[in-house]
Parts: sequence; C-alpha cells; structure tokens
Amino acid sequence: MRKATSNLLHTAGHHSWLSEVRCAKYGTASALTKDRYNVQRGNYATLTDRDVSFFEQIVGKSRILTDAADVEPYNADWLHSVKGYSQCVLKPKTTEEVSAILKYCNERLLAVCPQGGNSGLAGGSNPVFDEVVISTSLMNNILGFDSLSGVLSCQAGCILENLETHLEKHGHIMPLDLGAKGSCQIGGNVSTNAGGLRLVRYGSLHGSVLGVEAVLANGDVIDCMSKMKKDNTGYHLKHLFIGSEGTLGLVTKVAINCPVLPKSVNVALLGLESYEKVLETLKTSKRDLGEILSSCEMMDRESLQAVEDNLKLRVPIKDCPFYLLIETSGSNSTHDEEKLAQFLEHALDKNMIIDGTQASEPSRIKQIFELRERLGEGLLRDGFLNTYDLSLGVKDFYSIVPDLRDHLKNFSNVVRVSGFGHLGDGNIHLNVTSKAYSKEILQSIEPFIYEWTAKVGGSVSAEHGIGFKKRDAVHFSKSTRAIELMHQMKKVMDPNGILNPYKVLPELPITN
Amino acid sequence: MRKATSNLLHTAGHHSWLSEVRCAKYGTASALTKDRYNVQRGNYATLTDRDVSFFEQIVGKSRILTDAADVEPYNADWLHSVKGYSQCVLKPKTTEEVSAILKYCNERLLAVCPQGGNSGLAGGSNPVFDEVVISTSLMNNILGFDSLSGVLSCQAGCILENLETHLEKHGHIMPLDLGAKGSCQIGGNVSTNAGGLRLVRYGSLHGSVLGVEAVLANGDVIDCMSKMKKDNTGYHLKHLFIGSEGTLGLVTKVAINCPVLPKSVNVALLGLESYEKVLETLKTSKRDLGEILSSCEMMDRESLQAVEDNLKLRVPIKDCPFYLLIETSGSNSTHDEEKLAQFLEHALDKNMIIDGTQASEPSRIKQIFELRERLGEGLLRDGFLNTYDLSLGVKDFYSIVPDLRDHLKNFSNVVRVSGFGHLGDGNIHLNVTSKAYSKEILQSIEPFIYEWTAKVGGSVSAEHGIGFKKRDAVHFSKSTRAIELMHQMKKVMDPNGILNPYKVLPELPITN
Repeated sequence: MRKATSNLLHTAGHHSWLSEVRCAKYGTASALTKDRYNVQRGNYATLTDRDVSFFEQIVGKSRILTDAADVEPYNADWLHSVKGYSQCVLKPKTTEEVSAILKYCNERLLAVCPQGGNSGLAGGSNPVFDEVVISTSLMNNILGFDSLSGVLSCQAGCILENLETHLEKHGHIMPLDLGAKGSCQIGGNVSTNAGGLRLVRYGSLHGSVLGVEAVLANGDVIDCMSKMKKDNTGYHLKHLFIGSEGTLGLVTKVAINCPVLPKSVNVALLGLESYEKVLETLKTSKRDLGEILSSCEMMDRESLQAVEDNLKLRVPIKDCPFYLLIETSGSNSTHDEEKLAQFLEHALDKNMIIDGTQASEPSRIKQIFELRERLGEGLLRDGFLNTYDLSLGVKDFYSIVPDLRDHLKNFSNVVRVSGFGHLGDGNIHLNVTSKAYSKEILQSIEPFIYEWTAKVGGSVSAEHGIGFKKRDAVHFSKSTRAIELMHQMKKVMDPNGILNPYKVLPELPITN
Repeated sequence: MRKATSNLLHTAGHHSWLSEVRCAKYGTASALTKDRYNVQRGNYATLTDRDVSFFEQIVGKSRILTDAADVEPYNADWLHSVKGYSQCVLKPKTTEEVSAILKYCNERLLAVCPQGGNSGLAGGSNPVFDEVVISTSLMNNILGFDSLSGVLSCQAGCILENLETHLEKHGHIMPLDLGAKGSCQIGGNVSTNAGGLRLVRYGSLHGSVLGVEAVLANGDVIDCMSKMKKDNTGYHLKHLFIGSEGTLGLVTKVAINCPVLPKSVNVALLGLESYEKVLETLKTSKRDLGEILSSCEMMDRESLQAVEDNLKLRVPIKDCPFYLLIETSGSNSTHDEEKLAQFLEHALDKNMIIDGTQASEPSRIKQIFELRERLGEGLLRDGFLNTYDLSLGVKDFYSIVPDLRDHLKNFSNVVRVSGFGHLGDGNIHLNVTSKAYSKEILQSIEPFIYEWTAKVGGSVSAEHGIGFKKRDAVHFSKSTRAIELMHQMKKVMDPNGILNPYKVLPELPITN
C-alpha cells in the first residue's frame, strides 16, 4: 500500500504542494459525486471476488488494490469536487495487460476508469460510481529517444517532469509544461490534450504528438506509434485519442516531437494598471520578441492576493491590478537579451508598465514562476474552489471576471473572484472561491459563464477538458450534429460504453 | 467554359509552369484509370438528365459543366497518371449548396469526387470512373482575419497564394508553403494534410488548423469552426477531416492560425560532397540557427540536373553530389544575419560544404527557391514521372535512392532516379523518370520501395496522401486493426460510400 500511495503522490520540487494539499485534506469527507450531482448509475455489472481473482491472474496480487484505504486516493480529485467509490485499482505494466483487462471488462460489462496522475480539474479521471480504476502509474518506461530527430517514445504512465529531466540530458525539452508536471502523466496529458505554459511557442499536442498506441474497449490494440514527423497513411486515428479522456480507448504509448533545449531563458514579471495596458504590452511583446517568446501569462491582483494571503509568497514588484509574466527561450543569449531589453524599453517609454523585474538565473526564474504555478493551490486554500477554463478572444479575455464578480455580488460566502491564464493563447482560468462547497454558488455561476462564453464565440473548455463536471456544457461550444457524431464514434469504439462512463459526452437529446 | 478553365488553371508568379505543362499535354491522350489500374466500378447510379436538371436548380446553369471539353481538365491529373470520365462538374458557392448536392447524391447513390486545385500527386482529386466532380473553386471567400490572434477563416476554395497575399497586408503569413501554391486550395491542403516547405518551423496542419466545417455524405453540416487556439469540448472531430481526402466529408470552411510575417528572411544554397556532410550540416544548422530555421531542403545532383537539362535553369554554385537550401525567418535582421554567418563559418571551418551562395533580397531568394520548387516540373519533362513521398529517419533518408537506382539498373527506359525533399522533417521525394508510362517499371518500384520503407519504420506517404494510387500501400505503415477502424469510421460517416470512392482506404481483407 505505501508504495502505491507514494507513487500516486509523487511530486517533485516546488510542486510538492499538490501532495501536501492531498495529505492535509484526505481526512475530510467530500460528498460522493452521485449524491452531489445526482447521477444515475449505468447498467453495468458489479465487481465480484471472481473478477478480482481474474485480475490477479493478469497483474499479480501486488498490483491490484482492493483495501478501502489503498483505493481511496484514486476515488477523489484534489479539488474535493468529485468522489467515487471504486473498490478496485489495477496497475498494469504493459499494453498486453491493459488489453487483457479491457477484454475481460468488456465481456463482463464492468465499467472502467483510466487514471494517470489524477491531477485533472474536470473530474475526468475519478470513478463516478464503482468503476474499476486502471492506473497507468507503473507503465512508466521511456522506450527511446532519437536526438537527431528529437522524437521521444514512452509508455503512458511516465511523469511529465521525469520525461523533462530525461530529455534535458540529451539537450531537448518536452513541448508542454504544466504546474502539475511533478505528478501528471504523459498519457493523461495526451488524453486531455493538455495545453499549459509553452503552447504559445510549441503549439498543441495535436501537432507535437506523432504517435499513439491505444487499447479499445474490447482489448484490441490500435498501433499508431509513428515516430515520423509526417505520416499521411489513411485516417489520422491518433487524434481521436488526443483529448477524448479515455472514453474511446486507453492510451498506452506515445511518441512525441521534442524541441531543442533553449540555450538562454529569460523571464520578466511586469505590473500594469489596466487590461488595456495588458493588451498593448501583449502586442508589443509579440512584435519585439517574435520567435523567442515562449510564455505570456496574465494574472490579476486577486489571484496573486490568494498566493500572498494563503501561501505567504511575496510578489517582488508593486501592487498592481494586472501582472504579466513573459518568458523568452532562444539559442543565443546576447540576441535574446537585446530583444528583451528593446521590448522593455518600448513598454516603459509608452507607459505600458508601472513596475517590473527581470531574471535569467534559474533560481530566480523558478521563484517568479512559482507565483504563477501555485495560484491554484493559493485559491484552493480559501476553502472550496470553482475553477473554469475558457477560451476567449483576447479582446474579451478579461471582461468576464468583473461581470461574474458583479453577478455573484450578493453571495456573502464568496471569498474571491479572480482570473489568470495563458493570455498569449486567449485562455483564461476563471476562479470563484468560497469557504465551502455551495450548490447555490455553483448554480449561479453555471450556466451564466457558459452563456457569456458562447455569446462571444469562445470555448467552454480550453485545455482542462470536459471530464465529468462539464459534459452538460459541451453544447455551448459544439453543435448538436457534432455531438451526435461524437456519440456515433463512441458507439463504434466502445459499443458497451465501459470506458470512462459519465464523462465527456453530453446525453442526447440536448434539452437546454 | 473559358472562365471555368482559367479558374482551374489559375497559377501565379513562377508557378505558371503547372498550367503550361497542363496546356501542353492535354492534347495527348492518357489511358483511363480503370484500364491502367484494372479497377471495378462500384455499384453506383449513373448520371441522368434528371440529375443534371436537379443540380441546375441548386447551382444554376452557369455553374454546372457537362460539355466534354469543359469537363476534361477535371478528369485528369497533371502527372497524366490517372484519368476518369466524369460527365458533370458542379461548382457550388456555399455550404448550403454543397449540402443540397450531397444529400441528393446520397439518396440517388451517385458517387462524387471533391476537387480543389487539382494539384495532387496521388490521384485523390480526380474521378476514377464517372463520379460527379464537386469543384470548390468558387468557394473562395475570405471570411475574416483577426490580426490580434492571427486567425484567418475562409472558404475551402481559396487559393493558397491568394491567402498569403491577403495576410501579408496584415503582417502575417500562412503556416504552410508549397510549390503548387499558385493553384492549390486551402480545402485541398487541409483534406490532404499538406506539409510543404515551412513545416519544420510552423508544424503540421493538425496543429495550425483551429476549425473546420465539413459536409457529410448525407448533407449534414458538421460545424467545428472554432477560432480559438484551445478548444477541448468533446472529441476533436476536425482531425477526421484533416488528411482523409474528402472520403469522410467535404471540407467547406477552415480557420487557421497564421504566424507573424518575419521581418527578415535569408536563404543559403550550399553544395556538399556526401550525405554524411549533409547530416553534419543539418545538425550544425539546427544548433546555430535554432528558432529562426524555417526551411531545410535537400536536393541531389540528379534532381537539379533535370532542372538544368529540361528547364534551362542555372544552379549558381559548383556541381556537387548534394545541395542544401537553408532558409531563416526572424524578427531581427541583425540577429538573424549574425546567426547565419556563425553557422556558415562553422560549416566552412569543418569542411562540411564545398561551395555556397547566400541571399536576402526577395528576387534572389525567389531565384534560388525556384530551383527547388520546379524540380517536379523538371523531372516530369523527362517524359513520365513516378514520384514517391516517404518519411524516413534522417539517418536512412538518402540510402533508398542508390538502392532503388541499383534495383532498376536493367531498365534501359529509366531516364533518372533522384531524391530531394524536406530533410528537416525526414521527408524525401523519390523520383523515377522514363520516356513514357511503363507498367514494368511501376511494378518493379512497388512494392520494393514500400517494403524498404516499412523495414526502417518509415511512412509510405509523408505529405502527399494516399489518394487513388497508394491505397494498396497503406498496410505497409498501418496495422490491419487500424485499417479496420478506418473502415468503421467511413461506414459511420458515409454509409453508402458515395464520397470519393476508390480512394484512401485499402480493401479488406489485406492480402499481401
């Protein structure tokens, strides 16, 4: 048991907060998902001792958890927003084991819930009822890296930060970077089409992922593990597994194109007095920094206040309504510094920024990024966190925050309404904190913000996915016909609906 | 008629060779596809006058071609490798017209062949028998461009070069560039997942294309026209239309992420004495040029010889066994020139290159790129061109050329075996020219090169797609189970199989 738990909770460096939060909170009881959200269990079989015996034959006794205490961490998410009551966690090591497990579950009509690092925000990786959890944590082999092409291939359970460390030795980096990198797994990243801090530079996983191996519900293995940058042989099936959150197949292997490790990284934290100035600075940064811009993050004062209040971190510049965190990555430090200096000179000359600080030493960069990466933790420590992840045109990007704040002004139990996010990609994380979970607050936020987003042509889920919590919001961003087609795909690839049920797909017909 | 033909043949600038070749050759009769490749017509309905009357109601008399001479250019490809005998070309202007046409054809069981700029190399956009051609040429409206986000939306029939010209005014460029840009259409680019000269820098269309609208076989419109850089709402359906060559749906609109126009572009043409030197230079260019490298093309002497022999172009450096064309694009000309100078110094110091020339003025750059972009034309003028498009690991990249040359050494009618391509992406274009089409040569090339490619884990179609000519080769790069899943997708989205039949999907069971 200890081994399993420590594996799940493995986090490194400054990301250890995730495990701290988890440890601190697992004592407190969260409501079960089925009660909190009033869901009906599907017509699946219930786990029997015979099933457990069969699983033991596949993975051995050491890689099956059935003790309630061992299973508990897999049942809940770190936000305490969802909680299932699975009684069995399986830890396969190979594609063949996953295939045998799924074949059996499909024939037995046992529902399964694939789980990676369990760092999701939409409840996609936790069972809703008693689904058998298939944890990919032990599928953590790096299969190869070709330094000439920059292509890494690995099993789905490799932790993002471990891959990053491995690549650094070869002079490369992963094309994505997330706050949860110390615990999230590449299979989960791919299954949720994770975005993160570097997307503005290296693009989406649909571009970076070259190959995927996945197991369908009936145990069939779909091998699309191309390591080639270009491969136009038939339909591009791998993209069906990118972002479908384990509902069409369980991702077992990934091949991914990894950029060259930049020789020079610089970071600037800037304070600004209005969103207009933020926009002006964004435009200037794109112009002056061009190809070396690798992150462009915005934070509002309220978000950073949570980090100061709850985590006692210090923001190294003046209090301002808005902050920008700009990162550059390039191959020539002299050139990069010149570009950055020119950008900052323009921004100061035109009174775009009030205050700022700049860093190029790794420890100082880490300190500045910590402010950004620990925002979620800081906000969660207010008590309960409702967090949303919206794509909005850069022009409309921030106005949803004051609008929502105004909309919630009569709720005395709301602690904070804040916004931060990937400005360079038009992706805002919108947050409402309260002392505890409140159904009334939730019902006041949704569908208000979804309608707001749909009105301006945005997306109700930018990078966090749909999971369990947002499936009723999909129709705000996708047409009924498109949703029907998604159901048709599901029917083909998982006819019995055993793969991660209650997730991603809204029920049809759409009623609202 | 004149209008239709001139639209089809519209090419601009130095790409006018495509239309010249076409005009020069349309007099010569090519064999019909059905005879040359011995194909059986599917059980589709045959066009009647009533059908034509119905189509006239949808698109009007002026946008339907039925005269044999008018229809002919749509029946054949520019390589003279395939030729159908369609008797009807429809030119819808709107998604609604496409929808009405497909709904009717689906009910009537009339097969259709969607066609963009007809610049494909795999016979994907020409009818095999008498399919009704749906040309997207008149769906050429640019719908909008947001200069803040860099997102362009347009109809499928916009010509790539016209989009490029439009974007230049706004300080942006298209993320892809092809030799055929003067005639190819963005809908065709997306449907074939075109790669091209800039992929090494801006990545694949799976990353750049943000939104797609497509019409299914039954006329249903799938609207996935997100303009957001991140959108994780449900399954990522748009990727099913990227690269499926109109067999799952007809792409009618596209939204695409467009990079900022570089302020500085530099080009170097280098001569090298061996493939080992090519590899060494590639590594050095990646290291020294880093983020500003935007093209890395390789050409062998035999390829350039064709351009010299047949087009009377002059290569401005010494005769060498290999040539590299390196392009940089950046935001600061001083920095870019410094980087390029450093790279060239390293390459000269280490005796990687024999000779070279460098350009930064647009006219000189164009002159150098012309050598690369007219290779296809130069080779075609030998008589008949068998061209292959393979992804191979950079290490194995070139050895297939001497191997194939040796394999074909007893064919006295082979004029040239040559290789060139996108070295930076591991994508080679392998060419065999002969005075005329020869079945024996074809049968000696295939499956030899496909087996060669499969053995080293490459892809038998990197960027040109499968079309009609390569469907029997898909299994060299994809497993039977993956191909079965492709068929299942096809069945869901086009149950009657009316969309671009005889293309992309190999017949099951796979026999060889």
